Amino acid sequence: MENEDVKLLSFWVSPFGKRVEWALKLKGVEYEYIEEDIFNKSNLLLHLNPVHKQVPVLVHAHKPISESFIILEYIDETWKHYPLLPHSPHHKALARFWATTVEQKLGKAGWVAMSSSGEEQEKALKEARDMMEKIEEEIKGKKYFGGENIGYLDIALGWISYLIPVWEEVGSMQIIDSLKFPATTAWMSNFLSHPVIKDSLPARDKMLLYYHSRKNHFPSVFQKLLKV
Amino acid sequence: MENEDVKLLSFWVSPFGKRVEWALKLKGVEYEYIEEDIFNKSNLLLHLNPVHKQVPVLVHAHKPISESFIILEYIDETWKHYPLLPHSPHHKALARFWATTVEQKLGKAGWVAMSSSGEEQEKALKEARDMMEKIEEEIKGKKYFGGENIGYLDIALGWISYLIPVWEEVGSMQIIDSLKFPATTAWMSNFLSHPVIKDSLPARDKMLLYYHSRKNHFPSVFQKLLKV
Repeated sequence: MENEDVKLLSFWVSPFGKRVEWALKLKGVEYEYIEEDIFNKSNLLLHLNPVHKQVPVLVHAHKPISESFIILEYIDETWKHYPLLPHSPHHKALARFWATTVEQKLGKAGWVAMSSSGEEQEKALKEARDMMEKIEEEIKGKKYFGGENIGYLDIALGWISYLIPVWEEVGSMQIIDSLKFPATTAWMSNFLSHPVIKDSLPARDKMLLYYHSRKNHFPSVFQKLLKV
Repeated sequence: MENEDVKLLSFWVSPFGKRVEWALKLKGVEYEYIEEDIFNKSNLLLHLNPVHKQVPVLVHAHKPISESFIILEYIDETWKHYPLLPHSPHHKALARFWATTVEQKLGKAGWVAMSSSGEEQEKALKEARDMMEKIEEEIKGKKYFGGENIGYLDIALGWISYLIPVWEEVGSMQIIDSLKFPATTAWMSNFLSHPVIKDSLPARDKMLLYYHSRKNHFPSVFQKLLKV
């Protein structure tokens, strides 16, 4: 079963897709990468993920799975080598809690801080920095959230390490002050220098161009939570 | 470890809290129930869940866990008797997918359909019924989503069985037509007649009064997804 064909539909700059790529690479799972144009969605994507119509989609043994956190759990359960989630139920719960909470709160606050100005930006920056304080507490004294090795929460929060600096430049603002968040800054540097991560990131100038062009479009991953 | 003290902070009508109650009862875990006034939050709640400040919170061996789906996973990993999640990674992924997707889509659409009228209500009703069609496909031919026994997805979607009918009455609208959704209707009846569920539900007239008074307040569980 675990040796059946693996395909990943993603989009080059999708932080959700990156999570899945990293998990597969850390576990040494061979897969075919299929680049999806999220502005002109393929019939394949609409067929594989008819409800959300979003990347990433993992296809394993001809069965599609979508939503990045659900895919991470699936990968961790299917390929046991290099476990991602911690062992104890309590640490598992904490990892899942911070993964989803930071995505909801810092993801949105960071995007708004990038796209706005004045009072709205200040409010978003405060929310983003409040969340950074929680993250700083969690990472203090550790190389990775997973301990000595990159684990589930590193993968879940990995987008912070390369996307927040891009958003900061695009929005002319600062969320992660290295003096205020030294442990997080050290983690970012450890994470970005890991061979699996380093070789998987899009070029910075390409990301800058992309977010400059997209900053006024609130992404659909947040929109789907807003609209009925 | 599994015999240490268990406490649950919840609110009598919280569908998120009900999930946790059901899981503990199905597994035969003894716990102390602590009713929380969500309109005048206790220091205990703010201390145990400082990030989201929401029920439910499970406290086990003096450690708090919040967010109902994360609590369900914790309970299933800690007390192995009566497993809730399916065994195979693929079926686990599907159960998690439908749990979160239905909450996002039907939860919001149902609430808006209850609270609105005219075109806005029609749009929400269409979205709600589209989601019901997916659910109908999933439950067809089965007594419960979990098969012969109530499982994770039954617990996750259980709110549909008793809340949607209340919302329908409060909003003078219909989401679940038993002729269109016969398999879902049969599931609702099976679910509601299960001894653990039947004895755990709030009185219908009390729920009607509550939702009549709340229908114009979009609940904070959705708001937290909207605001930075």
